[in-house]
Amino acid sequence: MAPFATHRAVDWGDCDPAGIVFYPTYFRWMDSAFHELAATLGFDQRRLQEAFGLMGTPLVDAGCAFKASASYGARLDIEVAVTRIGASGISLSYRFRHDGRLVAEGREARAFVRRTDKGIEKADIPAALRPGLESFHAG
Amino acid sequence: MAPFATHRAVDWGDCDPAGIVFYPTYFRWMDSAFHELAATLGFDQRRLQEAFGLMGTPLVDAGCAFKASASYGARLDIEVAVTRIGASGISLSYRFRHDGRLVAEGREARAFVRRTDKGIEKADIPAALRPGLESFHAG
Amino acid sequence: MAPFATHRAVDWGDCDPAGIVFYPTYFRWMDSAFHELAATLGFDQRRLQEAFGLMGTPLVDAGCAFKASASYGARLDIEVAVTRIGASGISLSYRFRHDGRLVAEGREARAFVRRTDKGIEKADIPAALRPGLESFHAG
Amino acid sequence: MAPFATHRAVDWGDCDPAGIVFYPTYFRWMDSAFHELAATLGFDQRRLQEAFGLMGTPLVDAGCAFKASASYGARLDIEVAVTRIGASGISLSYRFRHDGRLVAEGREARAFVRRTDKGIEKADIPAALRPGLESFHAG
Repeated sequence: MAPFATHRAVDWGDCDPAGIVFYPTYFRWMDSAFHELAATLGFDQRRLQEAFGLMGTPLVDAGCAFKASASYGARLDIEVAVTRIGASGISLSYRFRHDGRLVAEGREARAFVRRTDKGIEKADIPAALRPGLESFHAG
Repeated sequence: MAPFATHRAVDWGDCDPAGIVFYPTYFRWMDSAFHELAATLGFDQRRLQEAFGLMGTPLVDAGCAFKASASYGARLDIEVAVTRIGASGISLSYRFRHDGRLVAEGREARAFVRRTDKGIEKADIPAALRPGLESFHAG
Repeated sequence: MAPFATHRAVDWGDCDPAGIVFYPTYFRWMDSAFHELAATLGFDQRRLQEAFGLMGTPLVDAGCAFKASASYGARLDIEVAVTRIGASGISLSYRFRHDGRLVAEGREARAFVRRTDKGIEKADIPAALRPGLESFHAG
Repeated sequence: MAPFATHRAVDWGDCDPAGIVFYPTYFRWMDSAFHELAATLGFDQRRLQEAFGLMGTPLVDAGCAFKASASYGARLDIEVAVTRIGASGISLSYRFRHDGRLVAEGREARAFVRRTDKGIEKADIPAALRPGLESFHAG
């Protein structure tokens, strides 16, 4: 199955005094690519709230391995796959490539949650959203 | 009258490949210093909402003149003054100094607003907040 | 003369707890759009350094008037014009629109500079770059 | 052995429309806390370059587990420990607490590198820096 594909330009302001991408920026791009994938599947944080009473999809865990450096002016191709679909959470993988060369490999674990009187608690993934998530599911 | 004084450290990630502060960072520090000043005066965005039914204090206008460059490791001393107190808005000035040397001079104009059925509209500055704002008023 | 046109998507992470764009983000977009315009004209900060011995184009002054709020998921159309071409500096204007409605109007004044033993000093705009800048010049 | 202790205030602009910290911000704080620890040990990226001919300490890998949410106005206490000291790299752990409650647990693996004609390659940790790093070593 084909993963979701998108890309981001490395901006001058994304880079640090060493001239390479300031590493938290990769996580910003991962979050941004997740929301872009979600929009493709027909949902965003507003719809999660309005249609399903959810608060959103906060992070449980995130990580990234940095394989090569990238600098401003580069275009990074990003592949996103859904690697796990659980009862109330999903995991995603992100591959960043520059001119075909692997630059970084990231991953996120996200929970579907709702606000209650007691705080934030896990919620089932809405059934309506599962087919879309499964369409980007890769091992 | 003494202006409000605070400071910020210039982080590695605040700087660009030229090794100097990436300029939008100054606006981030201005916003941060405004919220710090507001906390000193006993209010934050939550209290504006809960006690006064306001949405917050969004920007109407902002600007900054850059006088000298600063790099990571520097400590910037910041002076904040309230330069105008209107019916539903205030203006602020920000002076950034490094070792006494003026680095940047910024300004913000902020409105007190509420959400209505028609959108976002201006609201009177709550009377309870005026004395605090006036205590940092410097013409 | 037609200004330079580009666009940016408003990301979830570009917005603040009020659900609208955190205002320093507009300056990040302005800087990003400037570098995109420069790339269109055939130069970037590397070429300024390597071909012309310049350090870059740091900001002298920047400002923005905020006319309407924008939230995540929005696509902002941006028009950039060069409003002034001096001996060693340029000014630019930026108009951000959402669905045709003006959201923000920004401006930057930038200097062409070089590093010397004495610090950073102004440098002439390279003659080779003037025609390109003039092609986006709008009064 | 006592880990390195510092803290960061959660700014309005560090938070997303859900009102909680936008997660890449934790990585920005981790990077910032690393540089603060390094400064305590007497080095920064400039000294690495000037005294040891190194390019810096870029990331090999980073990750974070998110345990509880934090919002603006909170003060986060951060504990940093050096968990591994290798020939040319170190690992670090970061614990973020709010009012004593664990909010996030992060980790970084960093390499000491130099630029060569062939690109960026690993370099030995300078002997002069090892005692300082070991003083914050906690298995």
